[in-house]
Amino acid sequence: MNAPTSTPHLMPEIQPREVPAALLEALKARFGANCSTALAVREQHGRDESSFQAPPPAAVVFAESTQDVADAVKLAAQWEVPVIPFGVGSSLEGHLLAVQGGISIDLMRMNKVLSINADDLTVTVQPGVTRKQLNEEIKSTGLFFPIDPGADATLGGMSATRASGTNAVRYGTMRENVLALEVVTASGELIRTGTRAKKSSAGYDLTRLFVGSEGTLGVITEITLRIYPLPEAISAAICSFPSIAAAVHTVIQTIQLGVPIARVELIDQNTVRMVNAYAKLGLREEPMLLMEFHGSPSGVKEQAETVQEIASEHGGKAFEWATTPEERTRLWTARHNAYFAAIQSRPGCRAISTDTCVPISRLADCLLASVAEADASGIPYFLVGHVGDGNFHFGYLLNPDDPKEREVAEALNHKLVARALSLEGTCTGEHGVGLHKMDFLVSETGAGAVDMMRTIKRALDPKNIMNPGKIFEL
Amino acid sequence: MNAPTSTPHLMPEIQPREVPAALLEALKARFGANCSTALAVREQHGRDESSFQAPPPAAVVFAESTQDVADAVKLAAQWEVPVIPFGVGSSLEGHLLAVQGGISIDLMRMNKVLSINADDLTVTVQPGVTRKQLNEEIKSTGLFFPIDPGADATLGGMSATRASGTNAVRYGTMRENVLALEVVTASGELIRTGTRAKKSSAGYDLTRLFVGSEGTLGVITEITLRIYPLPEAISAAICSFPSIAAAVHTVIQTIQLGVPIARVELIDQNTVRMVNAYAKLGLREEPMLLMEFHGSPSGVKEQAETVQEIASEHGGKAFEWATTPEERTRLWTARHNAYFAAIQSRPGCRAISTDTCVPISRLADCLLASVAEADASGIPYFLVGHVGDGNFHFGYLLNPDDPKEREVAEALNHKLVARALSLEGTCTGEHGVGLHKMDFLVSETGAGAVDMMRTIKRALDPKNIMNPGKIFEL
Repeated sequence: MNAPTSTPHLMPEIQPREVPAALLEALKARFGANCSTALAVREQHGRDESSFQAPPPAAVVFAESTQDVADAVKLAAQWEVPVIPFGVGSSLEGHLLAVQGGISIDLMRMNKVLSINADDLTVTVQPGVTRKQLNEEIKSTGLFFPIDPGADATLGGMSATRASGTNAVRYGTMRENVLALEVVTASGELIRTGTRAKKSSAGYDLTRLFVGSEGTLGVITEITLRIYPLPEAISAAICSFPSIAAAVHTVIQTIQLGVPIARVELIDQNTVRMVNAYAKLGLREEPMLLMEFHGSPSGVKEQAETVQEIASEHGGKAFEWATTPEERTRLWTARHNAYFAAIQSRPGCRAISTDTCVPISRLADCLLASVAEADASGIPYFLVGHVGDGNFHFGYLLNPDDPKEREVAEALNHKLVARALSLEGTCTGEHGVGLHKMDFLVSETGAGAVDMMRTIKRALDPKNIMNPGKIFEL
Repeated sequence: MNAPTSTPHLMPEIQPREVPAALLEALKARFGANCSTALAVREQHGRDESSFQAPPPAAVVFAESTQDVADAVKLAAQWEVPVIPFGVGSSLEGHLLAVQGGISIDLMRMNKVLSINADDLTVTVQPGVTRKQLNEEIKSTGLFFPIDPGADATLGGMSATRASGTNAVRYGTMRENVLALEVVTASGELIRTGTRAKKSSAGYDLTRLFVGSEGTLGVITEITLRIYPLPEAISAAICSFPSIAAAVHTVIQTIQLGVPIARVELIDQNTVRMVNAYAKLGLREEPMLLMEFHGSPSGVKEQAETVQEIASEHGGKAFEWATTPEERTRLWTARHNAYFAAIQSRPGCRAISTDTCVPISRLADCLLASVAEADASGIPYFLVGHVGDGNFHFGYLLNPDDPKEREVAEALNHKLVARALSLEGTCTGEHGVGLHKMDFLVSETGAGAVDMMRTIKRALDPKNIMNPGKIFEL
């Protein structure tokens, strides 16, 4: 989803470790102008798109190479000072905050596409390459990279949070699409976690241990990704429904039939109203599905017909189809504008976002009960979702000057997460745990599994310097 | 591939730890007749389909529940004695051998399909369920589980080795198809590693840490898997080629075009000759591709036409098509009989198998050079491959009484692995490291990555009791 900003609030127990002057001197000596202690630079690296606030890091190192990262980590390890990898800063969960002090390593200068292996459908990039930049650079090959979180995030950050987006229903998430990594470990050593082979049984799956580890085990300095041939044909559709239930049941049936739909996004009637006001789209103010089909011309036609038939059975109306890129862009405008339209709908508001994901058969139960609760609360909200995966986001639109509203929103989120967990789902489909979901993680996986994560963390980062204070308390 | 048996040879340094009589008494007391120390039972659990030999385990516990597994592990932990999980015994890499002594836990009585969630395309099973049993039990739902190593292996063993097979080119491997696990840890505690949600960013990916860990981190006691709707249409084809190069280039182009082929298997001319002799198939004695297409009737037709066109450009001849289940079975006979036909072609021989996997663009280079070396060696061999994934298996057919032949075969394998690694591939696409590929693993990933694996192992299994001596030396 699009990155919401939200009501700032302080971390309950911030205990920044001291950053000794000797470390700052050593960093300056090694990195010169590429190490900054200017307040503005530090403050820019001390926040993200979450609602948390913490004092900024003591310094920012602008890494230009893997060697720079390794040297910065080695110095930090020597003084036992935290290290926080930083990309575009689009985390929604406080991943980038220096809650225990330390230094930030900015990776945005490591932004080269290192190799494009079009014949193997793989690409190797530095961590500061963003998803849009990658697609721009491989456009001429007829290939594309499908994972698309709302923000134009870096591929390093997307790997670290196991990100996904609208295409995940067909192409998977970062979990399925990272083939191999180069990582600087907590001691500043360099390891590689895999090869360019499509599959392997060669020992522990270190690649997937680092994907989703939120910077707590090492700094990702190179990423080998799967890419895909641009589909021969793409067709998009929007369809309105008499209720969210009708839209959701259309999705459930589509997935259960095995239709290889590429994207299927839900927008609720609130959000349609907001985007109509924002962009004068004149859409029916009813729940809506936005869909996209990829394949051969006849395959796409076949998929679309199947889904249209299912939708009609559930009262789907006002189908609009688009096959040219321009028409498709127009149809997707509602989705792309959802966040901005929502923010504008309540001047001065901030949004906080939920991220539950449930098995598809539980989607209606989870969603409808939470919609009823949100409606009853009186808090304005928008609702969008990657519903083909069972993942959806409420964005509660809060008056930042009213702590009561935040309380109500947090209570809604707690109920939603509890419901998702009781329906065999997860508290976070794609945003990560960060600072906000530590308690949810324990409820979800049990204390034993979180203890195992802690044991791994302690073993691989005995000084607890890699982005400490995220995912779990140590 | 089908499980080859092979020339037995002893492990160089076997140092079985002592199994105290007190532990055996405690196991007998807890498990009664479900704990056996009979030599025949121990010997049956002291070998697999690899070429290694080691003394059998001191006892075999037949577990009937997760609690049984937990109790057995707790007793073993108390006496610091190794534990080896055992399924059907189809490992090709010595995973099941008690190289450091200890007890075997037989999981074949934990063979229930616990729940079928057809609406979510998931199923939860006990580890002793085999892949064929699972497909039998879900047949009536119109769903299937695609991962198919040659043996009718257990889903516990397949998870532990990150297995794959002929359908992986379209459906992925165990890495992509295990959603969640229940695991008994090295201390006998129970953890769950995930939910039934299709995607999640909730902390470290423990599921994928255990998938492929070869029993060295814990015992898998429950597995939640993805399953798939049976395709509306399936069509199979065989096609002969003037050379292996022509067949391989057909595959490379098919994959690069993004054709969603479900299976594409190579059989070399040696193997065609062997299956002709074995099953009187009357196939052209030329390299052959066996292919399968899944989808809608028109989608399948379209895929097949595209591939036929590519094949024709590379001199592909003698296309045969099959759409009914009976015809398909006939076409796939050659593939299914390959191993047995090969063994019969040299009476008294044993086979040793290779398992390299390379990026698809390197497949021709890797394969053709290794075929030339194998031809020059004079060792008879068969060659089959999941070539759509860049994975293939030579089976060298050895006279077990001639150590010289084993030496030559091992030299061929070393050269092949070195070549695969230099082409950015892996030493093992699907069989695992076990005892046989420890040195290859270090060459492939580097000492640093293997050290990280060791660190994880030491942290999660400080007494080194979980299947010790596999993947790496500690």
